[in-house]
Amino acid sequence: MPELRVTAASGSYPVTIEAGASGRVGTWARELAGGSRVLVVCDHNTAEIAGSRIARDAAAEILELAPGETTKTFTNVGSVCVAAAAAGLDRGSVVVAVGGGVVGDLAGTAAAVYLRGIRLVQVPTTLLAMVDSSIGGKVGVNLSAGKNLVGAFKPPEAVFVDPTLLEGLPEREFRSGMAEVIKSGLVGDAELSHLLDERGDAVRARRPEVLLEVIARTCAVKVGVVSRDETERGERMILNYGHTFGHALEAASNYSRDLTHGEAVGAGMKVAARLGVRAGITSPELQVLQARQLDAYGLPRRIPVKVGAEDVISAMAHDKKTREGRIRWVLLASLGRATWGHELEDAVVRETVTWALEEG
Amino acid sequence: MPELRVTAASGSYPVTIEAGASGRVGTWARELAGGSRVLVVCDHNTAEIAGSRIARDAAAEILELAPGETTKTFTNVGSVCVAAAAAGLDRGSVVVAVGGGVVGDLAGTAAAVYLRGIRLVQVPTTLLAMVDSSIGGKVGVNLSAGKNLVGAFKPPEAVFVDPTLLEGLPEREFRSGMAEVIKSGLVGDAELSHLLDERGDAVRARRPEVLLEVIARTCAVKVGVVSRDETERGERMILNYGHTFGHALEAASNYSRDLTHGEAVGAGMKVAARLGVRAGITSPELQVLQARQLDAYGLPRRIPVKVGAEDVISAMAHDKKTREGRIRWVLLASLGRATWGHELEDAVVRETVTWALEEG
Repeated sequence: MPELRVTAASGSYPVTIEAGASGRVGTWARELAGGSRVLVVCDHNTAEIAGSRIARDAAAEILELAPGETTKTFTNVGSVCVAAAAAGLDRGSVVVAVGGGVVGDLAGTAAAVYLRGIRLVQVPTTLLAMVDSSIGGKVGVNLSAGKNLVGAFKPPEAVFVDPTLLEGLPEREFRSGMAEVIKSGLVGDAELSHLLDERGDAVRARRPEVLLEVIARTCAVKVGVVSRDETERGERMILNYGHTFGHALEAASNYSRDLTHGEAVGAGMKVAARLGVRAGITSPELQVLQARQLDAYGLPRRIPVKVGAEDVISAMAHDKKTREGRIRWVLLASLGRATWGHELEDAVVRETVTWALEEG
Repeated sequence: MPELRVTAASGSYPVTIEAGASGRVGTWARELAGGSRVLVVCDHNTAEIAGSRIARDAAAEILELAPGETTKTFTNVGSVCVAAAAAGLDRGSVVVAVGGGVVGDLAGTAAAVYLRGIRLVQVPTTLLAMVDSSIGGKVGVNLSAGKNLVGAFKPPEAVFVDPTLLEGLPEREFRSGMAEVIKSGLVGDAELSHLLDERGDAVRARRPEVLLEVIARTCAVKVGVVSRDETERGERMILNYGHTFGHALEAASNYSRDLTHGEAVGAGMKVAARLGVRAGITSPELQVLQARQLDAYGLPRRIPVKVGAEDVISAMAHDKKTREGRIRWVLLASLGRATWGHELEDAVVRETVTWALEEG
């Protein structure tokens, strides 16, 4: 049962990765809150697999949201805070987020602002949330004006990663999470990359021991990077590998349901690898290795939505990470190592984006 | 031109107190933002006295809100963020809040969450905002479920206090601010208390030199306390002198327009002084001095709203500062010094509250 620890300026917290870890959360949260109330935030699905039990053990109120990205709005942050007030949460209280990225972001943003901030516990229930969004303290919600425009840095008190919760996860969501796993190996852990090559069948079959190891290694990459650079002034940018194009693709497709986050990131990794090869930073062999892994884990060879190159390029320029319109790319330097801050020629970027949309 | 400096864990920032200081804000904010956009948030009144000029100097977008407490909602935080997005604000951008507590709180909360936080400059335009709400980093807005339930610690980059902006401030608002000034002398600066006694006519006439000195001394009390205890684990609680009863009175009257914040705090100071005398912590002479000052600066002798003692007591127990229902009082120990954390007998509190509502 590996326990990792994020140690950053805004606080230090454990990330426990263990089969059955979610079974201990309720009692733990109740003790953490002392005499104050606990609120469990989940959706209809995650209530069933873990939320209801945690709420019972914590003697907590439970708030069940509708599943899906459309729930992750600024308005609903208000709804969570109203529920917190109705449940009598005070400054000693604890919010437990049980769900995927939507629940974690929404409950996390509410916990960041309710009474100017109360404590938060993350219990991720999707592969993507386990290896990525539940760790690192970034939470955010959507406004009519755009995605994730509002949010906070809100480090949790603890993250409980329980791989047994993945049993019923739909295959497409599992593959979406695998894109971030593959990315983490490429940018930060060559051994993880080898493991994904060597134990492909076992990982795809979600065999508990190997899945635990894959998740733990992926979490370790994020924990290490976030501990060294919480506020993304430097190294944390490597986690955005594949996300420059990926986020823009999601935006340009109006966040179509036909495109998962992992599919968008996978496509973005191909764009970044091709740019890296062009720039002489990524080896052609590494580009091939990456393509083979994405293939092996079922990420689609062709981008599953139709969007225009200009829309994607415009969305990249308007990404909230840019300042004054300059895009800075993350590129692979070698297996397990990425570098950031690369400014590339517009013509090369345009050509590569067009290639990805038409032939990639 | 005194310049104070808040130095706290979350950051360090100057508080400049100077006649005409607001004239420099626009250019300063524009330089601070570099190539990024500036957004000036104000209301229809403060646009006229300072906001429009600052926006022009900063080449900024300006957002004019309706004046008044009803503007300070969670929903309007979203509106400010939508305006920020429409104006093209990015991570390098700056929000300038030009107004009283409502504008400062609303713009401050928006600046705390937009893109997970961008920079904020406070330009207070009321006496209350100059000496209290613009300093210390606490910002908050109202939910349907209650006042100030949502907010953040959001230290500004700088606070520009320009006493000349007070020229047109209505008398009742000026008196409301004076309650916090009187409080600051009593809990933290005996010389300020003497000044208020000795220069009463000049202060009430808002004579520029003496007003500047009074404001600077009051700001200095807050800057000192906040620098030593930003997150209110200890000493910062002394600033709540008079606020336990005061906040509860405001809540129990449903935030009636017939009661200003300063009037509520003034009434709360009388309750606290009486409790302090009963507990043997406050001298009867100090209680008399306080009553005379509140009188001299036009705070009403009788509470201007009708509310029941049980409603006020219930509101005190539900204050967001309480944990597990115990009220901890701030009491005056001597002129210029307060102590906190006093738990008092319910019967004594009940009797004193009843006295205040009926005879105080």
